[in-house]
Amino acid sequence: MRPVTLAATQMPCSPDSDANIARAEELVRAAAADGAEIILLQELFETPYFCIEQHSGPFALAQTRDDSRVVGHFAALARDLGVVLPISFFERAGPAFFNALVVADADGTLVGHYRKTHIPQNPGYEEKYYFSPGDLGFLVADTRFGRIGCGICWDQWFPETARCLALQGAELLVFPTAIGSEPEDPGHDSAGHWRRVMQGHAAANIVPLVASNRIGHEAGARLEMTFYGTSFIADETGAILAEADRETAGHVLATVDLDAAARLRESWGVFRDRRPGRYGAMTTLDGRLPG
Amino acid sequence: MRPVTLAATQMPCSPDSDANIARAEELVRAAAADGAEIILLQELFETPYFCIEQHSGPFALAQTRDDSRVVGHFAALARDLGVVLPISFFERAGPAFFNALVVADADGTLVGHYRKTHIPQNPGYEEKYYFSPGDLGFLVADTRFGRIGCGICWDQWFPETARCLALQGAELLVFPTAIGSEPEDPGHDSAGHWRRVMQGHAAANIVPLVASNRIGHEAGARLEMTFYGTSFIADETGAILAEADRETAGHVLATVDLDAAARLRESWGVFRDRRPGRYGAMTTLDGRLPG
Repeated sequence: MRPVTLAATQMPCSPDSDANIARAEELVRAAAADGAEIILLQELFETPYFCIEQHSGPFALAQTRDDSRVVGHFAALARDLGVVLPISFFERAGPAFFNALVVADADGTLVGHYRKTHIPQNPGYEEKYYFSPGDLGFLVADTRFGRIGCGICWDQWFPETARCLALQGAELLVFPTAIGSEPEDPGHDSAGHWRRVMQGHAAANIVPLVASNRIGHEAGARLEMTFYGTSFIADETGAILAEADRETAGHVLATVDLDAAARLRESWGVFRDRRPGRYGAMTTLDGRLPG
Repeated sequence: MRPVTLAATQMPCSPDSDANIARAEELVRAAAADGAEIILLQELFETPYFCIEQHSGPFALAQTRDDSRVVGHFAALARDLGVVLPISFFERAGPAFFNALVVADADGTLVGHYRKTHIPQNPGYEEKYYFSPGDLGFLVADTRFGRIGCGICWDQWFPETARCLALQGAELLVFPTAIGSEPEDPGHDSAGHWRRVMQGHAAANIVPLVASNRIGHEAGARLEMTFYGTSFIADETGAILAEADRETAGHVLATVDLDAAARLRESWGVFRDRRPGRYGAMTTLDGRLPG
């Protein structure tokens, strides 16, 4: 048995970064008090989801990893509480900007740095304006409580993300997220679709999975959107162990056994029976075989 | 709108091939009478699931594609009823044996031939003894009612199968199957896990999906197993549209709109935002980068 207690959190964000950081800290402290060892905060929780529109202003929010206020703050909190914290932040790196994440181990050490691989560009999700596609590869961070495969939001829609992380040894997948309504297609609710894609990642790769998603209503100059929360924890067969609703700030908890998941991953045979020589089409955009 | 009515079928199989073929024909006729245009029969429905154990006897059951009794019978039935039928059969090809499938178009023409890519080998599922791994690549068959991506049973556990099929232009995925209890681990019920993996394929690739699974109890000399049916049809977000129970022979029906799925596939952006240059690890077994 190697039980690990996981927490998915969710909260609304305001233009007041101090308030957002304080609220996120409260969530982490509450989850830790309930026994959580790996606590997932949502994507870009320091600020409103500025990608709702394209404006040059938000570039001023980006900081280098070493200077990032949230990285420093939550790495110290991880150490104080003895918990593992993936920390999402807006990264400036030389002339480039990334939607990034570091992982603070339970002693506060940063044990991984990731830059979002897949960048969306849809009405209300104008991320290609703000972020370069990540250049650091997929991240599996080796922490006190397990090897954590990390994606960020849109990465969660790609079976390739989850499979690459599993192949790199991930025992658990985490996805901090900011997703909600489609401002130019108000009738479209992707919440179920979003969840089933990730349940599939957990099930196909036989690893538990945590998704933390923003809640609340945010408005830009032209558009507005409502984030749908429904943060959840799935087990290694994709079954939902814990889930939040669409509106309530807080955390949900579940304990998984990483050894039991490893035993099923070994014995089930899906990694043994892969046919890598047949997957060349996956390394192109249009399914032709490379060469 | 491009509505297509799909049917998932399920039945128990006996040692009497005549009876199995007659029962499968009844299922197809009943589904067609209810308006189904693409009707999926389960894996290797001509015989019991002989892979429950390793014996040389069942090799005598294999036939070449041109000589296969089920292929001939059900291609003619497809023509008579004007329906599309993927047909699973045990193929002999020179000195080799495959777990194979052809697709009969609605005029009876065979428009695709596939050999199962991923071959399991677990207690009760001794397929590596019987079948060579498929050498024909993944199959997308262009039929009167849409482009059908075809996998066979164990293929359904691999995100690579579904993604390669989607990249090759599949508008719909079908998986004939024979899965049930684990004879040497009687407490293990994989039905939910099995379904969630495939719901994930549908959701991640934004294509509807049909799975037809065997039912009934079968016994070999040493082992016995119960197939769990629960055949289902999922929409392009992975939501269940129709599902069968674990024990009842018959069919379930659902109508999907392939044009609506295509519009969502286009606008959602997941195929635009893939990063093929980052997926090299998927073409190895252990996640190292090739080269």
